Amino acid sequence: MHKLLLLTKNRDREAYLAYLKSAALPDLEITTSFDSNIDLVFGEPTLIREMLPQLSKLVWVQSSWAGVEPLLEPGLRRDYMLTNARGVFGGLMSEFVFGYLLLYERKILQRLAAQKESRWDPSLTGTLRGKKIGVLGVGSIGSHLAETATHFGMVVRGYTRASETCPFIDSYYHEPDLSDFASGLDVLVNTLPNTPRTKKIINSELLAAMRQGGIFINVGRGSAINEGDLIAALTHGHLACAVLDVFEQEPLPPEHPFWKTDNLFITSHTSAPSFPEDIARLFLENYLNWINGRKLNFQVNFESGY
Amino acid sequence: MHKLLLLTKNRDREAYLAYLKSAALPDLEITTSFDSNIDLVFGEPTLIREMLPQLSKLVWVQSSWAGVEPLLEPGLRRDYMLTNARGVFGGLMSEFVFGYLLLYERKILQRLAAQKESRWDPSLTGTLRGKKIGVLGVGSIGSHLAETATHFGMVVRGYTRASETCPFIDSYYHEPDLSDFASGLDVLVNTLPNTPRTKKIINSELLAAMRQGGIFINVGRGSAINEGDLIAALTHGHLACAVLDVFEQEPLPPEHPFWKTDNLFITSHTSAPSFPEDIARLFLENYLNWINGRKLNFQVNFESGY
Repeated sequence: MHKLLLLTKNRDREAYLAYLKSAALPDLEITTSFDSNIDLVFGEPTLIREMLPQLSKLVWVQSSWAGVEPLLEPGLRRDYMLTNARGVFGGLMSEFVFGYLLLYERKILQRLAAQKESRWDPSLTGTLRGKKIGVLGVGSIGSHLAETATHFGMVVRGYTRASETCPFIDSYYHEPDLSDFASGLDVLVNTLPNTPRTKKIINSELLAAMRQGGIFINVGRGSAINEGDLIAALTHGHLACAVLDVFEQEPLPPEHPFWKTDNLFITSHTSAPSFPEDIARLFLENYLNWINGRKLNFQVNFESGY
Repeated sequence: MHKLLLLTKNRDREAYLAYLKSAALPDLEITTSFDSNIDLVFGEPTLIREMLPQLSKLVWVQSSWAGVEPLLEPGLRRDYMLTNARGVFGGLMSEFVFGYLLLYERKILQRLAAQKESRWDPSLTGTLRGKKIGVLGVGSIGSHLAETATHFGMVVRGYTRASETCPFIDSYYHEPDLSDFASGLDVLVNTLPNTPRTKKIINSELLAAMRQGGIFINVGRGSAINEGDLIAALTHGHLACAVLDVFEQEPLPPEHPFWKTDNLFITSHTSAPSFPEDIARLFLENYLNWINGRKLNFQVNFESGY
């Protein structure tokens, strides 16, 4: 018999319990509070981190988030298997990224302003078609973005460490060809996880390589950005706009200059929520892998951080 | 030798001339003003209508728009071949429709309001995935919308007169099953042309069949809507919002109640502009069809109106 601790926000707890119970997983008892027999934890990294020291029988942690930084902090135990959520966020990220790209290209805010004045505004719209988008990081999220971009007729570049398996990338770039990758881009989207290699990868040099009037979107991690460089690129008009969903410090402090930077959209880490339906399905499949001795999906390497 | 009259807005004239001249079409002289030898006109229906009576040698008119109503008015001559622009608007219409759907689902305006107050807003976002969209009219535009909807994981219904050739429609409906088609829809998009059969097809009965809190988007023609019924559905909250790009009278008069209707977005007939690059290419191909005795693409039937 295994014992599962479910650690999620209050708003999601009932939904997760309903999904887990309806699956009637074999050999599994489920609890939402500490118990000395717990060998399996499923939930949010911030909540799990607090419990880690007490869980003497811990074997496996399934994160309900993609990002597991809270569990990678120095000094925390690493004597268990850690798996994260992957493969379920691509569609949500595409909705987010293309929602904002279309907001800009199709002048939605400008047309709203005209409407407030009862003013017919037949000014020409832009289009995504033919524009160049660069995706930093081509995992499951970057691949979905590439597919959506291709659907809208964009030219797609991908920057990865090595793999070249996504059919929707028109041209691949690898280290150290970062500025070739960025050269002349209309749109740059960062999907990279937070690792030592990705810190401040978006800086003045990279942004300067983009086309004048381009758009930058960050759905990866806040640590990937040099904040001062981004503000300068927006303030000087080299970038038309930027959309930031993630930040080095979350919630973003009220005094942070980002709040008042023109042409910057702040979205409070809402780009790809972990919907219980998706994450529960992912856990159920992984639980069956576990009890049947198969390899777990989406295992995180504590060293590389993803 | 053929003589082509190019009749477009000033802002587009140079672009069209450049495309036409660079193609070096055989046996073709191009002019932008009246001449008694003109046998071919390419341009905007409203401008062409004014010239029609004078063009004694007219054989063929290629419209740069999809909508050719100005040339179908009673009393106008019909002794020439009329072709319209098709097949180039699908991508632009998808950008438009999904731009507004994502604006709504992803709470973009709500997050902008929070940002104005320097307020972190982690409220859950919606998603298009799993939602039901119904496309009224499955021509090249409706088919592209269906493909985009499928890409975003939506369930897609199509309402057509007969054909069932689009692979991205999950279920087809035909006359008289309009209320079955609309039943429980989250999103309804009208792409139908203006014909006697499509007038006021969107009325209180059809809207009432949709899910409470649904979205209606009109990129077809303004005549398809019963305006009072739509305002009532928005005012009473049955619809969450509506997006109207086309109107019975354009420009929409400043005193029209649509301007002040809550949750209504007005976009001034900008959803799918005729970009010279697209339309010129379409004309060039059709010109080669013409002089080589092949059937013209996209010929309009003066009786059915499309």
